[in-house]
Amino acid sequence: MKIRYELEGTYGKARVGKLVTNHGTFETPMFMPVGTQATVKTLSPEELKEMGSAVILSNTYHLWLRPGEDIVHQAGGLHTFMNYDGPILTDSGGYQVFSLAKNKKKDIVEEGVHFKSHLDGKKLFLTPELSIHIQNQLDSDIAMSFDECPPASADYQYLKNSVERTLRWAKRGLDVHRNENQSLFGIVQGGPYEDLRKYSAIETVKMNFDGYSIGGVANDDESKEDMYRAIDYSIPYLPEDKPRYLMGVGEPVDIIEGVIRGIDMFDCVLPTRIARHGNAFTRHGKMNLKNAKYKEDFTPIEESCDCYACKHYTRAYIRHLIVANETFGARLLSIHNIRFLIRLVEELREAIRNQTLMEYREEFLKSYLGG
Amino acid sequence: MKIRYELEGTYGKARVGKLVTNHGTFETPMFMPVGTQATVKTLSPEELKEMGSAVILSNTYHLWLRPGEDIVHQAGGLHTFMNYDGPILTDSGGYQVFSLAKNKKKDIVEEGVHFKSHLDGKKLFLTPELSIHIQNQLDSDIAMSFDECPPASADYQYLKNSVERTLRWAKRGLDVHRNENQSLFGIVQGGPYEDLRKYSAIETVKMNFDGYSIGGVANDDESKEDMYRAIDYSIPYLPEDKPRYLMGVGEPVDIIEGVIRGIDMFDCVLPTRIARHGNAFTRHGKMNLKNAKYKEDFTPIEESCDCYACKHYTRAYIRHLIVANETFGARLLSIHNIRFLIRLVEELREAIRNQTLMEYREEFLKSYLGG
Repeated sequence: MKIRYELEGTYGKARVGKLVTNHGTFETPMFMPVGTQATVKTLSPEELKEMGSAVILSNTYHLWLRPGEDIVHQAGGLHTFMNYDGPILTDSGGYQVFSLAKNKKKDIVEEGVHFKSHLDGKKLFLTPELSIHIQNQLDSDIAMSFDECPPASADYQYLKNSVERTLRWAKRGLDVHRNENQSLFGIVQGGPYEDLRKYSAIETVKMNFDGYSIGGVANDDESKEDMYRAIDYSIPYLPEDKPRYLMGVGEPVDIIEGVIRGIDMFDCVLPTRIARHGNAFTRHGKMNLKNAKYKEDFTPIEESCDCYACKHYTRAYIRHLIVANETFGARLLSIHNIRFLIRLVEELREAIRNQTLMEYREEFLKSYLGG
Repeated sequence: MKIRYELEGTYGKARVGKLVTNHGTFETPMFMPVGTQATVKTLSPEELKEMGSAVILSNTYHLWLRPGEDIVHQAGGLHTFMNYDGPILTDSGGYQVFSLAKNKKKDIVEEGVHFKSHLDGKKLFLTPELSIHIQNQLDSDIAMSFDECPPASADYQYLKNSVERTLRWAKRGLDVHRNENQSLFGIVQGGPYEDLRKYSAIETVKMNFDGYSIGGVANDDESKEDMYRAIDYSIPYLPEDKPRYLMGVGEPVDIIEGVIRGIDMFDCVLPTRIARHGNAFTRHGKMNLKNAKYKEDFTPIEESCDCYACKHYTRAYIRHLIVANETFGARLLSIHNIRFLIRLVEELREAIRNQTLMEYREEFLKSYLGG
């Protein structure tokens, strides 16, 4: 069975709904934790479930290189391999080819992309067909079309050509996709340009995918307006009855802005990555637990948080673990940070239902950016 | 309340019994996982409980340096600080001074030991009184006397002097120990010499500690006979109604040999340390999961094992995690390895009760050493 999206309510462009999958039904908007190498770093599947995780994401590029898609397939697919019985989404590998290829060198041809492995420099060639084949072998619930991820510096003409190529690649992927239990998403590209985003959205939607992603949005502070524009330019052309996924975005502020603009799904490595550096999301902004002021602070990261870390451990203890390089520290912070983002989307759903989304946003931003 | 040992049965010198503590009653012989820095590496307290852990060990030297005993005290003691509500044993720091002092340089004087921190080279001075003070602040259930840990190369005369000093230090520690809820163990030293072990045991027992440790046993393969001798020479002089703890030993074969010789308690970093290098204990010896032959092996580490890792994950998945440097791999192997040693002592208790200890040993060794 393919996934199904059920719209349940709106507030402006923002939507609450349900994503019905072969591995359960979950509410949207949702935040999807990232398990790059078939594991959400430091965490068990049971911990993810306890935090309220729904879909988790895994990376086609990484699993293709290691352990190899055939091994995952032999294991019975990604769910069995990694012991996660909720839905799993795999990306296409397109972004990793762009960001991880050895020396960032790659050769984009019509057929696909030539590049070298970031692990051992081995020559590799990834095509839309191969990406779909790998994702089929991984047996994720949701697969992504293989797209070109243009550099942030790309000019209009480059992006125009890139959008055309991404459409041709999407079509090729769709043509070879035969897994009735795996949904396939199309990806809207076009950088910060209204006409390109519109064109990309309309043409992608014509192919009738099971859902639509908005790609090519940078995650740095300078490009926030471009990110919001990219969403605004794409959303009007996406069908109401399909989920909309903003790829790679997980800053709390961006999740709120994305939801307001009509996004249903988010993913990001941020909560686990900042955890490994000793940082926690809080309602008052990011907290760096390495700071000496937490040495004798015997309160939880956040009194109001319901996560395992906040229920049982103090800032002083977590600081000690981080300073002493103990991985249980990263584990506790990963739990807190993922739960923080999952609570955020829970509250956003509630605010849409209660028609209080703008008040919620104002209050959150005042506290979060006020520090 | 001090701990209490209740002898329940014997087979030769081997004993089954109960250790009654302020944090629960637990059966002996027992294996105690090591949480050097107030965390058993990669694991949560709940996971330790699920594995059947009873007492866990933490290191006075490490906690003295980081975060400092006063912070742990302010937190409400080690149990509260690290969220472990079972009994905790702290060592004295003596062994770490010996093994971790910067450049291994130290100056042993009658008053205590001058040495430099392995973290920042800071000059430190640890004495029997300070060790007891730190352990009091940590508020462990069981504290250790501060002893001198002589090098493996020490000759008879050195060891004789060292035994005398350790006795004087034990007395000084006992004199300042005032915590009615913390038990204090004496430590028998004397290397491989029968007369020194006998003398050390008799004189230590005269001071009436709450339990007795056998220290100064090397953990390497060449010194196994010396280790067994050290136990054999000490045990006859230890009282029946007090627990006997062989410090730092966790190789399955040594646990079996120790139990046969009358030991009740063991601790070792081995199960978590070998886990981080991709190794698992099995009934057929150690298994290195990095080995390519496990790449497509979709069976658990051990079919017969009841641990979380063996119930839900395959060798192929754990191998993937280890090769990809994912800490969830070390976590799964740590769970398996600690559970392996806890199951071993469970079976040894059963074998003592059933008077089948020597058959159990023979069978285990045949399988474990047979590979």
